[in-house]
Amino acid sequence: MRSLSVARRYRRATRPRPGQATLPPRRRRGAAIKAVRLHAYKAAPTVDTVAEPEITGPSDVIVRVGGAGLCRTDLHIRDGWFAGAVAVDLPLTLGHETAGWVHAVGSAVEHVAVGDTVICHPNISCGLCKACRAGQDMACAKGLNFPGLTRDGGFAELVKTSERAVLPLDPCVEPVDVAALADAGLAAYHAVRKTVPVLEPGGRAVVIGAGGLGHIGIQCLSALTPAEIIAVDRNPEALNLAGQCGAHHRVEADGRHIDRVRQLTGGAGAEVVLDFVAEGTAVQDALGMLATGGHYYVVGYGGTLSIPTLQLVLGELEIVGNAVGTADDLAALLRLATAGQVTVRTAPYPLEVAGDAIADLEQGRVRGRAILTP
Amino acid sequence: MRSLSVARRYRRATRPRPGQATLPPRRRRGAAIKAVRLHAYKAAPTVDTVAEPEITGPSDVIVRVGGAGLCRTDLHIRDGWFAGAVAVDLPLTLGHETAGWVHAVGSAVEHVAVGDTVICHPNISCGLCKACRAGQDMACAKGLNFPGLTRDGGFAELVKTSERAVLPLDPCVEPVDVAALADAGLAAYHAVRKTVPVLEPGGRAVVIGAGGLGHIGIQCLSALTPAEIIAVDRNPEALNLAGQCGAHHRVEADGRHIDRVRQLTGGAGAEVVLDFVAEGTAVQDALGMLATGGHYYVVGYGGTLSIPTLQLVLGELEIVGNAVGTADDLAALLRLATAGQVTVRTAPYPLEVAGDAIADLEQGRVRGRAILTP
Amino acid sequence: MRSLSVARRYRRATRPRPGQATLPPRRRRGAAIKAVRLHAYKAAPTVDTVAEPEITGPSDVIVRVGGAGLCRTDLHIRDGWFAGAVAVDLPLTLGHETAGWVHAVGSAVEHVAVGDTVICHPNISCGLCKACRAGQDMACAKGLNFPGLTRDGGFAELVKTSERAVLPLDPCVEPVDVAALADAGLAAYHAVRKTVPVLEPGGRAVVIGAGGLGHIGIQCLSALTPAEIIAVDRNPEALNLAGQCGAHHRVEADGRHIDRVRQLTGGAGAEVVLDFVAEGTAVQDALGMLATGGHYYVVGYGGTLSIPTLQLVLGELEIVGNAVGTADDLAALLRLATAGQVTVRTAPYPLEVAGDAIADLEQGRVRGRAILTP
Amino acid sequence: MRSLSVARRYRRATRPRPGQATLPPRRRRGAAIKAVRLHAYKAAPTVDTVAEPEITGPSDVIVRVGGAGLCRTDLHIRDGWFAGAVAVDLPLTLGHETAGWVHAVGSAVEHVAVGDTVICHPNISCGLCKACRAGQDMACAKGLNFPGLTRDGGFAELVKTSERAVLPLDPCVEPVDVAALADAGLAAYHAVRKTVPVLEPGGRAVVIGAGGLGHIGIQCLSALTPAEIIAVDRNPEALNLAGQCGAHHRVEADGRHIDRVRQLTGGAGAEVVLDFVAEGTAVQDALGMLATGGHYYVVGYGGTLSIPTLQLVLGELEIVGNAVGTADDLAALLRLATAGQVTVRTAPYPLEVAGDAIADLEQGRVRGRAILTP
Repeated sequence: MRSLSVARRYRRATRPRPGQATLPPRRRRGAAIKAVRLHAYKAAPTVDTVAEPEITGPSDVIVRVGGAGLCRTDLHIRDGWFAGAVAVDLPLTLGHETAGWVHAVGSAVEHVAVGDTVICHPNISCGLCKACRAGQDMACAKGLNFPGLTRDGGFAELVKTSERAVLPLDPCVEPVDVAALADAGLAAYHAVRKTVPVLEPGGRAVVIGAGGLGHIGIQCLSALTPAEIIAVDRNPEALNLAGQCGAHHRVEADGRHIDRVRQLTGGAGAEVVLDFVAEGTAVQDALGMLATGGHYYVVGYGGTLSIPTLQLVLGELEIVGNAVGTADDLAALLRLATAGQVTVRTAPYPLEVAGDAIADLEQGRVRGRAILTP
Repeated sequence: MRSLSVARRYRRATRPRPGQATLPPRRRRGAAIKAVRLHAYKAAPTVDTVAEPEITGPSDVIVRVGGAGLCRTDLHIRDGWFAGAVAVDLPLTLGHETAGWVHAVGSAVEHVAVGDTVICHPNISCGLCKACRAGQDMACAKGLNFPGLTRDGGFAELVKTSERAVLPLDPCVEPVDVAALADAGLAAYHAVRKTVPVLEPGGRAVVIGAGGLGHIGIQCLSALTPAEIIAVDRNPEALNLAGQCGAHHRVEADGRHIDRVRQLTGGAGAEVVLDFVAEGTAVQDALGMLATGGHYYVVGYGGTLSIPTLQLVLGELEIVGNAVGTADDLAALLRLATAGQVTVRTAPYPLEVAGDAIADLEQGRVRGRAILTP
Repeated sequence: MRSLSVARRYRRATRPRPGQATLPPRRRRGAAIKAVRLHAYKAAPTVDTVAEPEITGPSDVIVRVGGAGLCRTDLHIRDGWFAGAVAVDLPLTLGHETAGWVHAVGSAVEHVAVGDTVICHPNISCGLCKACRAGQDMACAKGLNFPGLTRDGGFAELVKTSERAVLPLDPCVEPVDVAALADAGLAAYHAVRKTVPVLEPGGRAVVIGAGGLGHIGIQCLSALTPAEIIAVDRNPEALNLAGQCGAHHRVEADGRHIDRVRQLTGGAGAEVVLDFVAEGTAVQDALGMLATGGHYYVVGYGGTLSIPTLQLVLGELEIVGNAVGTADDLAALLRLATAGQVTVRTAPYPLEVAGDAIADLEQGRVRGRAILTP
Repeated sequence: MRSLSVARRYRRATRPRPGQATLPPRRRRGAAIKAVRLHAYKAAPTVDTVAEPEITGPSDVIVRVGGAGLCRTDLHIRDGWFAGAVAVDLPLTLGHETAGWVHAVGSAVEHVAVGDTVICHPNISCGLCKACRAGQDMACAKGLNFPGLTRDGGFAELVKTSERAVLPLDPCVEPVDVAALADAGLAAYHAVRKTVPVLEPGGRAVVIGAGGLGHIGIQCLSALTPAEIIAVDRNPEALNLAGQCGAHHRVEADGRHIDRVRQLTGGAGAEVVLDFVAEGTAVQDALGMLATGGHYYVVGYGGTLSIPTLQLVLGELEIVGNAVGTADDLAALLRLATAGQVTVRTAPYPLEVAGDAIADLEQGRVRGRAILTP
């Protein structure tokens, strides 16, 4: 669905040529790389030159970045929202949604080799704690270890991550085409997967926000459930994309949208609301659209949920927070993409013009997902 | 656990004598009965004499009340909290937690007969809508049809309900001993049942409020899960009851209770918080006690839940409203009671002194559940 | 998908004319009706004239049959397979898969009225036992009460059933078009619904038998899961139908089909096998197609499952029996049909030529489902 | 519960002295160790002297064995049952149920150190395949890598395993007391955990075989479910142990046991049968004890399950194979043991008299679990 020209030009420059995929990388150790770095909260990130990352542990993996998605979370990190919640040191290379090719590996890494095409799960987990052993990679007992948030991320030519955070891809996949699955897609899939036991035939799912996450969420709903899908967005173009992705109804968020959803659901409200915005009025809108016994999945953030416990109890509502997703979710989502059941709408930007991408995202000018390409 | 003297005296007067259980009831049609009725919001209910209910439909069942539990919800109804949320007409006989003996049945009723000992599910459901067919009696498409809330209830000598809302009991059970299971027990069991998939060995469950609901909830947790149970209450006697019911830890709600729960859970917080209060500071307390990935079950009501969506998302929290319970839940709870795994602590009051019972409940002087006995 | 001519002719004769739907039925009480009846095991059923059924209880419903599906189970009943397993008295009017219009109702029936278009759940359940209250209509504590098996069924002009076994349809639906959903569709949907938690993206589901049940099962799999669907049948025309219904792969059961399924699943076998045959070699075939951790859903019957417990344990296999389905399942399936996600391929036969339909079914000449129309 | 004398003597000899736990092990590299080895199928294993195992990979862990349980599977391995099913090379050191102290670790191992008390999960899994990431350690895509079955096991002074297969224990735990949890306990817990959604209050669980697995299974049922537990065994002493472990009913397998279970369940049969035998008549017994809608969990093996598909379908039965368990299961079971909810009955034997232990197990003279102590 995306315009291919920018990405193609990029690929010619950086992709390993046929037959060379497993050769040692062309860079010398100690060389410098470009990276988009945040030096102070609420200030614009800059494109810097920094030392390239090096393998220091047996499980380390360094990835040559093919594409890294720009996320609303990058704006929130810039604005200091996470400063209290997780350990963040500045300066920091942003970018937590990355795909590319393996550039170097530590001595214990066996499941990928230099030159392999890979996508990165956003969190580096230990693999041995209770959460990791149950596949809950985001809840690793060692805490978040998250390139682009707690350590240098993927808005760079190279990014250092770890064995468990690297999933091999078919070599014919272009990283720029799938990078958005690593976080936007993953978070959407993770939430949609929770709706599966809830959405029986005749069930209704409202999707608030048909942007980077929402347009993938709609496709996942179509693939995994028999639900009737109602997309809500303030932007008509986003609603068009929603329709192309499989939404059965498109509702413009013009102030009458709660009534419109009530009407589309015969007055009852929807069994499921997936909220990819969760800022501003979205939270109250979502609660107003829920049926008795309804489930509200919160994926976006920024606002405050406020509800009388009487309403929660009388309606027997469930409110479910969603933190990114698991490596298993990412693998499942990749299988959907391979089967053609999910396609990402991307808008590629060269790394050097990261500032333009950020401005476009803030102004609501990006359809689908903006991807930075080194 | 309760003092038996009051109930025994009562029983001699009203229980069908051996061999008489199935005889026609001694009252003539059109006779008058005593009932505790609400005439105006925020005014004390009065003990009135009213016409006795009559069978008018094929599925009707009239129950001679053996005991009817007094619930915090009765205070909330009195104070008008439900006036906007459900259809309530005054004057209204209160009481939605009732057990007794069948007094009269409509022509289509087959599963109980006059004289049978029964307990009443609080809601009269249609049996044919989608929710009813899935056992979700509280979500009946015909809306709440709830003696003591939307029609005359069980603080009376007789109460009229319907076929689906009457569950037969072993004839040796005393209604006064089990009436509290019909709502307090049912709501507690319903919420605890939802925790079963969440509470693995080593899991921790905090119970906020060890009163009428909480002391049953603790016993249900013991019977259904391997969890370590932490009871929180401001009243030391309630905490004693919690300990007798199986709580492993008792925490006085003295302002340092969040810290105490954090300490008891190794700093992590609890996987489950069951909140039978959900008024005042309880809601914020509960959120402060939750572990990452924790589940918060709201059974009480009155307060407002307020939480930044970032906290909901980062913690991947789940917040679950609980509306009473299903007839299946009630049947399961009765099986626990029969097996001795759940016992109700009751404080019986003759119907005439309903005002005393209300005052004791409001002043925190009731341990377990107050039961009105006609 | 079916040829419409036969059904259309029929409809003109028997359907209530516009504006007459709620008029009393034209028949006088005590009139005679045609019915296909079994008089002796292993003998051909005959088309008899019998007294029409009458309302005797408050929950009774008599349905004027619009169409009744012919099922392999009818052959098994004829051959005496159920004689030991359930209470069957001969002579018996066959037919357990019926749709039509309400002809008469008992005094307590409120949710449907004379003239309404309805479909019949195959089992008449009590509504008050533990199983019924949990929606498990087939497991009613009163045992099977199954028109066409334990009492007179739907191969007749009129059939008597009960309130809980009648689901209202949109008046524009033709009973002959949906009758097959009442049992073939229901059984297929019921089994497919159980596969939902098992079939993640990339999962493979084998469907053995693409006949009356199987062709609906394939459509349900498409609607409810992201699975890759592999249809197996010995009949090429049935495989064509499977392809039209959404099967991704079609495998002829020619003796090499186990190998072919193994090949299509990369050697691993399938996560799910749905067996609508379960006679002859189908059971061993199914076990041979299962992956480690695989689930085998048995819907057909007639054969014997035989497996060493070592194989069951090493493979951590699950084997799941499926008995028809619930009223909730039927309602969900009707919603899929309304949304166009499930269509039934039917082959209508006038009631008088029931013998031809039976012969065609036995000889494998029916594609989709044969429907008898009075 | 066990006689402590033998184990105590052993411990004095081999346990690291206080203050020495983290010192390098006293053995020199290349030293010899004792091991119980199988040289030919159907021949008695012998106590041999072999070279001690060495660290060769970064994830290797060598454990000094404190105790290793003797399992009926060891007899089956000896008799060649697994020769076709998994890759087994002879000679082989038996023993797949081991606890002890860490003796040496590879360069990448961080979560345990030399001297730590540990228990071994029986299978060495890769940690990166789909199954491992979902916590299904037994279904690792690399296949079984199972000390005592596919490589040298724990009936020896030292056993070599790997990082993911080693769980740390509290240092005050004696390995000989918990070794039986590593396989017997794990398999029992794994199956019991699957019964949790099935066993509501009033549910009945039959346990066939109250030996090494069964006596732990009964305790897990008590801790995790509200079920009424019925133990079935042919040995009266085993039934006594079952009673001590929490079984509510004890049924001697004397030929009338199916009738007895039917009687105890009011004629209906049990919702759950857990079969720790699954040889001889046990499988048919189990099927005869199941209620409609019942679940049959097969943990033992050796016999053949044979059931007409009509019975499977009419009864809507589920048959569930169980392959050992996951590392998460083992951790959960250890938490139950720490909380005192599960205790193992052990019968310790010095490694040198392994032959006696084997003879006692074959003759039914072991109560609980026989443990070999080097």
